[in-house]
Amino acid sequence: MSQVVSTKPKPAIVVDTSKSPYALLHPVALNDVRLKDEFWLKRQKFNREVTLPSQFDSIEATGGLDNFRRVSGRKEGESSFYGFYFNDTDIYKWLEAASYILATERDPELERMMDICITELAAAQRDDGYLDTFYELERHDERFTNPDMHELYCAGHLFQAAVAHYRATGEDRLINVARRFADFICNTFGTRESGKRPWVDGHEEVKLGLIEMYRATGEQRYLDQAQYFVEARGYGLARRKDPEYCQDHKPFKEMDAMVGHAVRAVYYTSAVADLYAERGDEDYKETLEHLWKNMTEKRMYVTGGIGARYDFEAFGKDYELTSERAYTETCAAIGSVMWNWRMLALEGEAKYTDLLEWTIYNAILSGWSLDGRGYFYQNPLADDGTHRRQTWFYCACCPPNISRLVASFASYIYSVSDNTVWLHLFADSQLDTTLPSGQKIKLSQQSNYPWEGKIGITIESAGEFSLKVRIPGWCDRAPDVTINGQAVSETVKTGSYLELSRNWQAGDSVELDLPLEIKFLEAHPYVLELKDQIAVTRGPLVYCLEEVDNKSFDLRDFVVSGTAKDVRLEPSDDLGGVTKLKLEGEVHKKAFEGLYRPVEEAKYSASKVSVTAIPYYVWANREPGRMQVWMKNKI
Amino acid sequence: MSQVVSTKPKPAIVVDTSKSPYALLHPVALNDVRLKDEFWLKRQKFNREVTLPSQFDSIEATGGLDNFRRVSGRKEGESSFYGFYFNDTDIYKWLEAASYILATERDPELERMMDICITELAAAQRDDGYLDTFYELERHDERFTNPDMHELYCAGHLFQAAVAHYRATGEDRLINVARRFADFICNTFGTRESGKRPWVDGHEEVKLGLIEMYRATGEQRYLDQAQYFVEARGYGLARRKDPEYCQDHKPFKEMDAMVGHAVRAVYYTSAVADLYAERGDEDYKETLEHLWKNMTEKRMYVTGGIGARYDFEAFGKDYELTSERAYTETCAAIGSVMWNWRMLALEGEAKYTDLLEWTIYNAILSGWSLDGRGYFYQNPLADDGTHRRQTWFYCACCPPNISRLVASFASYIYSVSDNTVWLHLFADSQLDTTLPSGQKIKLSQQSNYPWEGKIGITIESAGEFSLKVRIPGWCDRAPDVTINGQAVSETVKTGSYLELSRNWQAGDSVELDLPLEIKFLEAHPYVLELKDQIAVTRGPLVYCLEEVDNKSFDLRDFVVSGTAKDVRLEPSDDLGGVTKLKLEGEVHKKAFEGLYRPVEEAKYSASKVSVTAIPYYVWANREPGRMQVWMKNKI
Repeated sequence: MSQVVSTKPKPAIVVDTSKSPYALLHPVALNDVRLKDEFWLKRQKFNREVTLPSQFDSIEATGGLDNFRRVSGRKEGESSFYGFYFNDTDIYKWLEAASYILATERDPELERMMDICITELAAAQRDDGYLDTFYELERHDERFTNPDMHELYCAGHLFQAAVAHYRATGEDRLINVARRFADFICNTFGTRESGKRPWVDGHEEVKLGLIEMYRATGEQRYLDQAQYFVEARGYGLARRKDPEYCQDHKPFKEMDAMVGHAVRAVYYTSAVADLYAERGDEDYKETLEHLWKNMTEKRMYVTGGIGARYDFEAFGKDYELTSERAYTETCAAIGSVMWNWRMLALEGEAKYTDLLEWTIYNAILSGWSLDGRGYFYQNPLADDGTHRRQTWFYCACCPPNISRLVASFASYIYSVSDNTVWLHLFADSQLDTTLPSGQKIKLSQQSNYPWEGKIGITIESAGEFSLKVRIPGWCDRAPDVTINGQAVSETVKTGSYLELSRNWQAGDSVELDLPLEIKFLEAHPYVLELKDQIAVTRGPLVYCLEEVDNKSFDLRDFVVSGTAKDVRLEPSDDLGGVTKLKLEGEVHKKAFEGLYRPVEEAKYSASKVSVTAIPYYVWANREPGRMQVWMKNKI
Repeated sequence: MSQVVSTKPKPAIVVDTSKSPYALLHPVALNDVRLKDEFWLKRQKFNREVTLPSQFDSIEATGGLDNFRRVSGRKEGESSFYGFYFNDTDIYKWLEAASYILATERDPELERMMDICITELAAAQRDDGYLDTFYELERHDERFTNPDMHELYCAGHLFQAAVAHYRATGEDRLINVARRFADFICNTFGTRESGKRPWVDGHEEVKLGLIEMYRATGEQRYLDQAQYFVEARGYGLARRKDPEYCQDHKPFKEMDAMVGHAVRAVYYTSAVADLYAERGDEDYKETLEHLWKNMTEKRMYVTGGIGARYDFEAFGKDYELTSERAYTETCAAIGSVMWNWRMLALEGEAKYTDLLEWTIYNAILSGWSLDGRGYFYQNPLADDGTHRRQTWFYCACCPPNISRLVASFASYIYSVSDNTVWLHLFADSQLDTTLPSGQKIKLSQQSNYPWEGKIGITIESAGEFSLKVRIPGWCDRAPDVTINGQAVSETVKTGSYLELSRNWQAGDSVELDLPLEIKFLEAHPYVLELKDQIAVTRGPLVYCLEEVDNKSFDLRDFVVSGTAKDVRLEPSDDLGGVTKLKLEGEVHKKAFEGLYRPVEEAKYSASKVSVTAIPYYVWANREPGRMQVWMKNKI
């Protein structure tokens, strides 16, 4: 297993803005954080013990690794390619996820599987650095003839996996493969003036990979190449009839709305944020902010999910947000987290962290079954009981994407800047790191989040530094914040970071009491199907109704009564341990024959009922039935 | 031009159920009807003088005919195929449309173009009867290896064109081409037991063509072959991962909902209705009725449009009927007319005629611009001003489909059975035909439909026969019906055919006074986005609001006041001459920041406005702007 982990691991940083001149916040390494959180440890245990091994089995069973073996000649037989043409990325994302796990703990079985993957893909790389099993097996003479055929998408995921592996394990076999492919790309594509081939990536991923490769290796040409791919975009090089689909309809700085394939769109904005972090250019930042506003104020589901349309897996128009046909791909939500994390690094604004957290709890975790073996590609906000998690997909992008997010969760809890430590997410954990100022810090966080709002922070080693704690924007009112039992003198504002600058003593204790109040949310009136409807939330969680809890009536006829204050909490061990909600309301069944009729006074049969709501992220883990997030609050 | 029209034309029947043992109604030939209607003559004139010539030009310009020329070697050059792989059908549908025109009137220019088409396609037919330019040019050795590649779809449209041409002109050059291809198909595909290849059509069309070929030629094997293709369906022969897409998920008799690609679905049900007309089998009829009920009560727009989804151009689930993203392909509406026409022939029920008429006025005419040169593929029920008619499409199925429907309009006005003449549609026209009983009849119809409800029917030659007149289901109340000024003694019921059996004298005059009242329709409460909304109709027309008429506010903020009785008529010469409607209401703009917020008491700014509504079928003929069919009637 010496091929997988060296004796000298690097700091296992997930997105390394630690030296980026235009980044305000810098990351902490995975191995500087010890996660002790019940909610997350349980998920990480599943990820490691069930999900990643079963994904490896699925990849083997569907021929994903055999594609590499046939390219290298390490497996005989017919030379045709198995599966979807960008299958290679399933392995790359899987390797990235496994690397994040190894950053904090050895695991011989995982290392054995990683070794198989790395050995096979290294053997399949061509002498010139090219690596794409679909083209090698199916279209040998057609390399880079169609920008939409994902060769650069595969490359980008290889780069991300290689960097993650290198940083987590110190071993350079995989990053050497990546370097050879990256060099090939840098030598091949560029402006005509530079004597290279003008080209852009179809599914946008390679830019993210190249910038991270630059950060890991110091090779500036990788950053230059990423910048080229950003700047070349918007002039039709992607050669699509519908260039909006892959954001090739106009140059980035001219974009005014989030359009096209949602995953591509947020991978693109993430890459531009990375580029800004390295090179600046206020136009990029302004465009990013404008696009973020368009997405969050016009084109996002209440879960944080994005991409309304099944056709082309795309963003819809403003306010086009149907619940039952919501596409809301798990990967798009993950891309949104990637983007928000980078915006947070640039600006240090709590609104990005709020959305990052909200998206993880409500639009990503929903994509993964409680038993760790099932996945949603789409995460609709209503369903008739037919949409169920699958164990694998022909296009299996989402499963390993969830795994790499879950495996890297600890990296999103804290950041550092100058002499400041930022506390973004609430999770039982310990941080042991050094600030850019040189100040060593050690602190721990205690919570039973997201079920309880009390958060404790214990300073474990003395020092003079600032602690910036996020006060979530979803708090109705500023929470009580105390240090050693005394209310702080600073003004506590929701939706911002509370800065506590002290000469801290070991044992100092900060306490936040976040008000996890239940809320009824309403939507903008132009989201037509949400007229007179509410969504129920508590803290960072969106709730939903499931038929299995409410069998005596059709959920579509339910009308909630009263206000959020009338809702009762119901802690429970079900569904992995969740706090359920009990709502009162009435069932109003409208007498209606056929589909259309002249307007008449409505006749209803009405009856009082109590309903049970569960967190949205755990839906579809019991028997199939109707589900809905939104419920009527007016007949 | 002798190649196009012979001196002995056949009765130009569009769907010939005149000898079908299980059909109750029989058609009248196009050349038995003389259309004098202002509304329709104007459209037919455009169709003939502008639309068909410009379609011919588009077909030539996009290489559609050159594909045939390159197969036959009548044009040199590279052998690659132009355009979409089932382009051949554009020419076939165009020929079908042109044939219907020639059924009643010669037209040298049209005949010249038809001659070019027929000459080229006859020259391109292979010796074994096969004819498909995409396969000949691109995949010569792959004939019939993929059921979804439309070879049989092309064949079916060839057959329909050939039959139409033969019946309208008496000339047999085109039908001889069709016979050779039909023979090839009959010799090739069938059950394994018969020594043939099991196969089904991907895009369902060939069955319709084969049955009409049987009717035109008397060749029973064509009917047998159509029956084989119906019976072979539902067992996965179409080889799709998602067999519902092409209705191959279960045998027809087990289908319980309209699913999959909408055009395919209604072409399928149309073919099964044709099969029932020839061969009986009550299970087929029962399934057809059940599916019709599912479509009309759960899966149809208020315009009659069908196919809610952009993805796969498919029917949605029950009540999945979003307005702005309605796909409602023009071809699907045409397919619905085809199906309703066949159901009417089987059962003589007015509900089918009601829907046929409603669909023509509201879901098909909308697909064609008033200048005759622009087409909609999708016919949404709301729009932000960006959906505009195009002069042609890469997939140009809709334009010639509209043309063949418009060109054959006269064939849907009347039917006959035994000693009865059926009057289905209201249009100024003259009928001169012979009933199956042998009774000769001559009558004329006078109307200014759809703008006025007064319909006159003049018996022009004496005889003892029944006249069955449709009393539309959209009438609020039974209309006054008189004969020679005297109220009839028969009970007049809306949504049925009123049978008037008399010993008619020449000059007898029947008058109907259909109440063209304005109505506010509401939708089933499970169509979520239509909560508290109404659609305005008058007679057979659905109305809509367009921004160009109502610029002082956002249509989405409009709330109509009062009832349908408060709406005023406003006849106008605009838009080709339409009756507009004037509605009173208020603009309620809700103060709302962002996309979601905790429920609060709504604050509105309100102002009174009058709005102008126009018939939906003429929308998007002026400057671009927002349009919506549904409007709020409650804040």
